Amino acid sequence: MTAADVVPFARVGVIGAGAWGTALALAALRAGRDTILWAREPDAVEAMRRDGENARYLPGIPLDPALEITADLARAAAADAIMVVTPAQHLRTACTRLAPLLRPGTPVVLCAKGIELASGCLMSEAAAASLPAAPIGVLSGPTFAAEVARGLPTAVTLAIKDQPLGARIVETLGSRSFRPYLSDDVTGAQVGGAVKNVLAIACGIIQGRQLGDNARAALITRGLAEISRLGLALGARPETLMGLSGLGDLTLTCTSLQSRNTSLGRDLGEGRSLSEILGERHSVAEGVHTAAALGELAGRHGVEMPICRAIDAILNHGADIDETIASLMARPFRIEGR
Amino acid sequence: MTAADVVPFARVGVIGAGAWGTALALAALRAGRDTILWAREPDAVEAMRRDGENARYLPGIPLDPALEITADLARAAAADAIMVVTPAQHLRTACTRLAPLLRPGTPVVLCAKGIELASGCLMSEAAAASLPAAPIGVLSGPTFAAEVARGLPTAVTLAIKDQPLGARIVETLGSRSFRPYLSDDVTGAQVGGAVKNVLAIACGIIQGRQLGDNARAALITRGLAEISRLGLALGARPETLMGLSGLGDLTLTCTSLQSRNTSLGRDLGEGRSLSEILGERHSVAEGVHTAAALGELAGRHGVEMPICRAIDAILNHGADIDETIASLMARPFRIEGR
Repeated sequence: MTAADVVPFARVGVIGAGAWGTALALAALRAGRDTILWAREPDAVEAMRRDGENARYLPGIPLDPALEITADLARAAAADAIMVVTPAQHLRTACTRLAPLLRPGTPVVLCAKGIELASGCLMSEAAAASLPAAPIGVLSGPTFAAEVARGLPTAVTLAIKDQPLGARIVETLGSRSFRPYLSDDVTGAQVGGAVKNVLAIACGIIQGRQLGDNARAALITRGLAEISRLGLALGARPETLMGLSGLGDLTLTCTSLQSRNTSLGRDLGEGRSLSEILGERHSVAEGVHTAAALGELAGRHGVEMPICRAIDAILNHGADIDETIASLMARPFRIEGR
Repeated sequence: MTAADVVPFARVGVIGAGAWGTALALAALRAGRDTILWAREPDAVEAMRRDGENARYLPGIPLDPALEITADLARAAAADAIMVVTPAQHLRTACTRLAPLLRPGTPVVLCAKGIELASGCLMSEAAAASLPAAPIGVLSGPTFAAEVARGLPTAVTLAIKDQPLGARIVETLGSRSFRPYLSDDVTGAQVGGAVKNVLAIACGIIQGRQLGDNARAALITRGLAEISRLGLALGARPETLMGLSGLGDLTLTCTSLQSRNTSLGRDLGEGRSLSEILGERHSVAEGVHTAAALGELAGRHGVEMPICRAIDAILNHGADIDETIASLMARPFRIEGR
């Protein structure tokens, strides 16, 4: 299929005006679409309109005046394609509110990463419960929001079962600087983004303990093997896990201190306590919760995830960091790939 | 097979006393083996003995006095297991010199990364030509030498066809801080280490052009896809390419400026010319040559490697950096995994 065959959607609605939602709205605008960004709080809408920037989440990056900003959910939901960019734990609520407002057949692209803690559900499962009739897609990949907002080159996975519809969404959002790669592996595209936050905490601990770059590279590699085992058990395809939403996102998150999870891990590795670290932060790093949820999910599917389990033990069950590292290192020598 | 069944070799000979050879000798010593390190120049042997360090390649890291250092190749070759750690382009010569000195059946583990430029051969192919009777293994992975020398945690792939022999080598070299994962995929274990230097130059260019971390993560992901395509065409197994010698080494090299290839790319990305950069350096970054050799190898096997080809065009055929990046970004939107 070539671009000439594919008609983009004219109007994109972005639900959620955090850093990532705002950046995606700017990307859609840059791709040439009419774009409407919905923020929950009228004050936030007012501030963005007045300041011409999202001062709270993306300070210093001007908002194109062509971007429509609203607190009216029905107005945003009337667009031809919807991107839901609320935090992972609020996704189900957002979809429930959207359900009566969407026109039949409107595609809904989920852009939050994580596992729903109350249910252990992937984002697509949580959304499908509220939006049983809507075609559900997932957008995931190595994406610092500020870079996307600035128009720096970025590639993501766009996964949806209906491939002709997926091609339209790719054409709707894609530009020279923002490049979606189409996939039909909706499950696979969500596993990396959920698990990577736990592994990022592990990488941060390695950094805080000054264990070196070799150890971090080994951890990323063995961590990707854990993502793969879980993904395959859930029905994902290997190439998705080795792609932008898996390997790509893992690499980005684990090699940058821009990640809240990595910096939390570093603080832990430097010897500070979790309660002390969390006490100083406005937001909880997603990986703290995901580690607990993953233990349950991995157990249910009989998947071995020793690194994720170790991080859960450190974060949520008072395990000692040095003893945990020592016991990971003392495992018997193994065959690669197992 | 458990460690209890496997008898390590008593004595390890390391051929080549650069940073990596010296570090591997220290790792073997730390694993409890009698270890002998061979350096080509008697002056270098003298200096290491006198200074208690390898001041030229690993300054500041003390050499354990138990390490035997020699310029007598026959003495090192009399060990029970041999590691060859010469530069890639000198490997064939080193093996030719070793051939008459080895006892029959002595395993030879190749630790150099690259492609032999004159022949397009992998290291194992170049070695086998000189050592047709020796069991040939390959050691590769994410390894900064200084970290291994200091005993920081490191994991590598150890690939050899004869798996019981491989288990003995793993037991010989393995310790709590240095962990070899056994594989029988000798070809696969060499592909990542060869190609990564070219991709590291690409990552450096992205950094020099200030294109951001998203772009680098996408490049690592799409670059690993190129490694995989080439590896599979050469007969490698996917899990090797996704393991320590593939993904692991690629991640380490591409996310650190310790790599000569990355820093060369950064200088190029900042607008300096290749001749100017190379004029200031003592050693050529391996990726400059590998880029040319890879073009030939990929062509022969009908493998598509657009990023590696683009780097070859920039380095060796005068292509403009911005035009090359623009044409990579202007490729049509694609299906992930293809």
